[in-house]
Amino acid sequence: MKKMLDILLVQNEREGKAFLTKLLGKKPLFVCTLGTTETGKIEGISAAGANPEITDYTPPADIELLLLGKCECINGVPVTPDGIPTPALVTMSALGLANIPALPVNAGMRILPHVPFLEVGAKPGGDIRTGNAVENAQKVLQRAKLAGELLSKTVDYLVIGESIPGGTTTALGVLTAMGIDAKGKVSSSMPGNPHDLKIKVVEEGLKARKINFGDLANDPLAAVSCVGDPMMPVFAGLVLGAAERIPVLMAGGTQMSAILAVVNALNAKLLGNVAIGTTRWIIADKTADLKGIVSKIADVPILAADLDFTGSRFSGLRAYEAGVVKEGVGIGGSTIAAMAKSEGAITKHSMLKEVEKNYAQLVGSN
Amino acid sequence: MKKMLDILLVQNEREGKAFLTKLLGKKPLFVCTLGTTETGKIEGISAAGANPEITDYTPPADIELLLLGKCECINGVPVTPDGIPTPALVTMSALGLANIPALPVNAGMRILPHVPFLEVGAKPGGDIRTGNAVENAQKVLQRAKLAGELLSKTVDYLVIGESIPGGTTTALGVLTAMGIDAKGKVSSSMPGNPHDLKIKVVEEGLKARKINFGDLANDPLAAVSCVGDPMMPVFAGLVLGAAERIPVLMAGGTQMSAILAVVNALNAKLLGNVAIGTTRWIIADKTADLKGIVSKIADVPILAADLDFTGSRFSGLRAYEAGVVKEGVGIGGSTIAAMAKSEGAITKHSMLKEVEKNYAQLVGSN
Repeated sequence: MKKMLDILLVQNEREGKAFLTKLLGKKPLFVCTLGTTETGKIEGISAAGANPEITDYTPPADIELLLLGKCECINGVPVTPDGIPTPALVTMSALGLANIPALPVNAGMRILPHVPFLEVGAKPGGDIRTGNAVENAQKVLQRAKLAGELLSKTVDYLVIGESIPGGTTTALGVLTAMGIDAKGKVSSSMPGNPHDLKIKVVEEGLKARKINFGDLANDPLAAVSCVGDPMMPVFAGLVLGAAERIPVLMAGGTQMSAILAVVNALNAKLLGNVAIGTTRWIIADKTADLKGIVSKIADVPILAADLDFTGSRFSGLRAYEAGVVKEGVGIGGSTIAAMAKSEGAITKHSMLKEVEKNYAQLVGSN
Repeated sequence: MKKMLDILLVQNEREGKAFLTKLLGKKPLFVCTLGTTETGKIEGISAAGANPEITDYTPPADIELLLLGKCECINGVPVTPDGIPTPALVTMSALGLANIPALPVNAGMRILPHVPFLEVGAKPGGDIRTGNAVENAQKVLQRAKLAGELLSKTVDYLVIGESIPGGTTTALGVLTAMGIDAKGKVSSSMPGNPHDLKIKVVEEGLKARKINFGDLANDPLAAVSCVGDPMMPVFAGLVLGAAERIPVLMAGGTQMSAILAVVNALNAKLLGNVAIGTTRWIIADKTADLKGIVSKIADVPILAADLDFTGSRFSGLRAYEAGVVKEGVGIGGSTIAAMAKSEGAITKHSMLKEVEKNYAQLVGSN
C-alpha cells in the first residue's frame, strides 16, 4: 500500500494524496463529539469502560484527558474490561506534539465533563432495541450544521472524532435501515468482535418499528432516530456545515461509514471535500471491512495513520497490535493531522515515544 | 480626536494605533457572552427589554439574530421600553459585511437560544442586593480560560462582547468592592441614566456582606461572587486564556472597566495585548465616564467606532444620537473588527447603510 508521510493511502489513492496535500502545514481544529446511549450498556456490546454502567463516564473522561491532561470525573483513565487504557491517550499525544486545539461537542453525554464544550441540544441516546434511539435528530443536525459553518470560518480544516460507547452497533443499525449491508463488517473495541450480538440488537430495533433493510435509504434522519445514536446528527451536521468551505477529515473506524451514508443522502456533493482518517489497525482488522462498506456508499479517500505499537515496552499498547481498541476519540485522524501539520516531522516513531511518555505518566508501568 | 480608518483613538493613542495595526486584514472571531441576572429585573435598572421580566429573552434573542438573521425565542427583535430595537442589529450588520463568525458563550442565560453555544458552567445571576450574585465564579473562570486558550489557537484575534441586562449596575458593584470609584460614571441603556438607583442597589449588596469600598481589591472573584454578574468570570476567563497568545478586543461600554479590573488583579501583564473597543456614543456620553474609570485601573487603549446615525431615515436609529442604547452586544468592537478586517473598505457610511437595511427588514419603517 502506498504511503505519504507515515500515512497509508488506503482507498482512492490519487484523491487521498490530493486531500492530504491540501492539509500540509495547515491549521486544523480537532472537534470531538461525545455521547452515550443505553445501547452501549447492553452486556457484551462495548469495551469503552471496565463495565457497562461506567461507559457514561468514558466520553467526559476522554475529553478531560485531551484538554486537561488528566481525567477529573473519574480516577485514572478509562479502561476496557481487560484494563487496556482509552485511545484518548493516543489522541492527546498527537494533539500535544502538534499543538492542535481540541473542541468538545456534547453529542448526548449523560455525565458532563469538567471542561468547556459546545452545546447543540443533543440528549443521551436510548436503547436501539426499542426503535426509539435519538430525540430531535433534525434540530440537533441543524444546530450542528450552524456550528460547522461557524468553525469553518476559523481554521483551515476540521478533524472530527467521536467517543460514544456502542457506536459500531448503532452504525450497523443505521447502515442496515439505509440499505447498506454491513453485517459482519463493522469493527469492535472488544478483542473478539461480537457480530452476532450486534446483528441481533439491530434486528430487534428494526422489528420494533417494522423497518426492513433499505426502507430508510432516503430518510437518514429517520434511520438515526430509530436505530442510531445522538453522535450521528451532531457529527453529520458538523460535516454538512463545514465541508462547503474547508476540508473535513472524518476521524474514526467503521462508525464513519454510517456518518458517510447520512451525509451522502443529505448533500452528496460535499463529499468531494471529505476523507476518512483512521488507523492501520482498522484496515488490518480481519473481523471488519471499512473499505467494503465505504465503497458501497461513496468514493471518498480513506487515509490510515501507520501507527505501530509492536515494539512498545507497555503491554497495554502492544494490545493494539492484537486487535484491541484500534480506534476511538479520533486517534487515526488526529495522528494524520499531527503528521500533516508538521509536514512529516512527527512520525510513527515520535508518536509511539510520546504515547509511551503519556502512558507511563497516566497509567503506570504495565 | 485622532482617527485611524473610521475608528477614534480615544485613549493611549500610540498604543491604540499599534493595536489596531496588528488587526488590519487579520481574521477575528466575535465571541458573545450571554447571561441574565435578577439584578437586571429591578424596576428601572435596564432597558434591555420592553419590561423587566422579558429581559431573560433578550440575550438569547440577540444571539439568534447574529447567527440566524432572525430571532426564534421571541417574535420580532428585543426592544427597549420605548421601542428602540436591540443593538444586536448593528453587530449583525458589522459581522455580516465583514463575514466574521460569531460564537455564543452561555454566561448564565435563563432561556437558552436556538443556536449552538459554548458551555462553561455559568448559571443565571442573583440579585446583588442579597450579596450573593454569582455561583461558582472560580470554576467558571477556569473553564472560560481553557476556552480562551483553545480559541486563541484558531483565529488571529478575539473580539469579546456581552449581552446581559443590568450589566452596568453589577459593574458598579464590582468596581466599588475593588476600590475603584465609579459612582456616577457608569453608562446606561436608559435615556436618563439612573445613577442614584444603581448606587442604592450596589450599597445594599455591599452592606449585606459587610463589604466596604476597596475591601476586595485583591480578590476580584469574591467581588464578582458578591455583587457582580455571571458574564464577568466568563468574559475575564476568556481574556485570560486568549491574551497570552493573541490580541483581545474587549467590546463594550463601561461594563468593560469591571472586566478590566478583574483581569488586572489576576494577571496584569496580559493587558499589553488587550484594548477596549466601544462606540462614539459611549465616549460622548455626558452621564458616564469610561475613560475616567479605565485610567484608574490600567493603561489600555480605548478605541471607538465612529458610528453616526444622525442622518438615518429611522427614528429608532437616530435615538442612538440622543444617548439611548449606545452599546451592547459588542456593537463598537464588532464594527471596529469589520473595519479592520476590510482594511477600511467598510466605513461608517457603509455600516449605516447595512444597519438601515437590516432595520427595515426586521423592525419596519419607523
